[in-house]
Amino acid sequence: MEQKISKIKAFVFDVDGVMTDGTILALPDGDLLRRFDAKDGFAFRMASMHGYHLCAITGGSSESIRKRLVTCGFKTENVYIHSRDKIKDFDDFCTRNEVTPDQVLYIGDDIPDLCVMKLCGLAVAPADACSECIEAADYVSPRPGGKGCVRHSIEMVMKAQGTWVLNTEQYKANF
Amino acid sequence: MEQKISKIKAFVFDVDGVMTDGTILALPDGDLLRRFDAKDGFAFRMASMHGYHLCAITGGSSESIRKRLVTCGFKTENVYIHSRDKIKDFDDFCTRNEVTPDQVLYIGDDIPDLCVMKLCGLAVAPADACSECIEAADYVSPRPGGKGCVRHSIEMVMKAQGTWVLNTEQYKANF
Amino acid sequence: MEQKISKIKAFVFDVDGVMTDGTILALPDGDLLRRFDAKDGFAFRMASMHGYHLCAITGGSSESIRKRLVTCGFKTENVYIHSRDKIKDFDDFCTRNEVTPDQVLYIGDDIPDLCVMKLCGLAVAPADACSECIEAADYVSPRPGGKGCVRHSIEMVMKAQGTWVLNTEQYKANF
Amino acid sequence: MEQKISKIKAFVFDVDGVMTDGTILALPDGDLLRRFDAKDGFAFRMASMHGYHLCAITGGSSESIRKRLVTCGFKTENVYIHSRDKIKDFDDFCTRNEVTPDQVLYIGDDIPDLCVMKLCGLAVAPADACSECIEAADYVSPRPGGKGCVRHSIEMVMKAQGTWVLNTEQYKANF
Repeated sequence: MEQKISKIKAFVFDVDGVMTDGTILALPDGDLLRRFDAKDGFAFRMASMHGYHLCAITGGSSESIRKRLVTCGFKTENVYIHSRDKIKDFDDFCTRNEVTPDQVLYIGDDIPDLCVMKLCGLAVAPADACSECIEAADYVSPRPGGKGCVRHSIEMVMKAQGTWVLNTEQYKANF
Repeated sequence: MEQKISKIKAFVFDVDGVMTDGTILALPDGDLLRRFDAKDGFAFRMASMHGYHLCAITGGSSESIRKRLVTCGFKTENVYIHSRDKIKDFDDFCTRNEVTPDQVLYIGDDIPDLCVMKLCGLAVAPADACSECIEAADYVSPRPGGKGCVRHSIEMVMKAQGTWVLNTEQYKANF
Repeated sequence: MEQKISKIKAFVFDVDGVMTDGTILALPDGDLLRRFDAKDGFAFRMASMHGYHLCAITGGSSESIRKRLVTCGFKTENVYIHSRDKIKDFDDFCTRNEVTPDQVLYIGDDIPDLCVMKLCGLAVAPADACSECIEAADYVSPRPGGKGCVRHSIEMVMKAQGTWVLNTEQYKANF
Repeated sequence: MEQKISKIKAFVFDVDGVMTDGTILALPDGDLLRRFDAKDGFAFRMASMHGYHLCAITGGSSESIRKRLVTCGFKTENVYIHSRDKIKDFDDFCTRNEVTPDQVLYIGDDIPDLCVMKLCGLAVAPADACSECIEAADYVSPRPGGKGCVRHSIEMVMKAQGTWVLNTEQYKANF
């Protein structure tokens, strides 16, 4: 585990049930809205400032996901929405960002995430993930989706690597 | 119970308090919005891919319900909104989809659901259903409405029938 | 308590923290949206069908409140929004609907409700009401605001009075 | 602690995770919506009526925040949105409102709040604040963000100072 953590250079996330508690607000026009967590947002910004690569791969199709994550430091091309093949998108991310799978921490909570969880360096499941993901995970977060599992996982890696430090001037300039 | 489960070919659901935690967001124009659960959505897609019939019967009137469920594999004609007679809609569903009531698992949480619960093959109540539904149920889910009772019930049937298996290619092609 | 319950002919409610968990979604145009509970909605309809008077008195100003409650059987003139004087609105309701204060069950959760709680026949506080309301209440509901206190209180009265009975035909015709 | 409380003349708040549970609803146009708490709203009005200064300093950028808080008694110029330098905004607030830092109770839940928490008279952290804020706080509220920490803190000060008294006429006239 410590060795796996020491290699991490990138954080890749499923969205529903990981960045959120899994609930999606259904609008009359068919769009679906999510509730993100502000403390996760701060962790994304900290990770981005310290040079970690950030990526989201989701079956969801709403542009609201991309809009939210880009303001948190995700590159727009690293937000894969409407994904139907998470392995393909994961490989594309790794290639473009020049990271190897063992340098990636991935958090997933449901069956479509299993394929990436088996491939990445450190597979994390939220406390309330489906049973298959709990079994496949290297680490089960004590926190459920949308309520701390993202923040807790990023902090865990960055504190272990000594990078959980706020550079106030850089923060002001970038966010 | 095992015998009842072995017969199930269709899943029929009430919406508020079953697919959701019962809360409805009231808009200024009178429309009401619901928060659905992403893990339920995946279970709907799994069931649909394996040939189970899916149906929702709700007193709610928002088209947002139909829009959401159709993207999860429900046929549009199997989403009964603004229902004022659940028995009539249930019968219509059974006839059109050529299933008998004993082949249907139904989940309901409130008094208008009782009539269908007494008729279907396997009546399920969420953990937080009204007392009358808890009493009428063949099975009380350990999970409340909107927080696992749908996913858990679908998984229970499909695992017992050996159909809880993801065909990745089919999933890519259909959703 | 039993005697107080036996007299009840009307249900009067505060909205925020009683019909809801107290959270209000703030929109960019200044409007505030609430999440109501579907099981409360059914109880409102049952009470309305059986001739109970329903009323809401709220400091909130959104027309979305009136829209929601009217679909649940409230008369539009019995939904007092933007109330700044709950006693005045309570008196107006009693006069117009020909009920006396001791025939009213009132549920309130915060300090502006205290004046009516001292006046009505049966004062109920949700489990998570402010301490002053807990003290002033004749009955503290085991359920918090937005999560059962309304449904539970209406059921308690109607079951005691023998009116918690669904007339299916009447329900179909009216809602 | 008692001495610190006796000096308080102003309440300054972070927004996400303090006035809310930290969740933010992401809209398709990029705007982010918050769910505020009605009981906090009443406490803001009580504090405003009794002459306390109210201020919010948030990294969030939505005008919906300002709209909500102004209806609760905040002066529009005391709502700092899109703040990137909380110390600068805090100093600006103190100067314009003629309060000294030791007369300010501040509630913050995440790392960007630490700088103000070290400067103000009474630093409060919600029960679910990040570990760094819990450590920096003079007082850790028994309530989490969005679920009582604001109301509880305002009440604590106003009850200690003997100002938690509703002047009904003044309330009617102002809100």
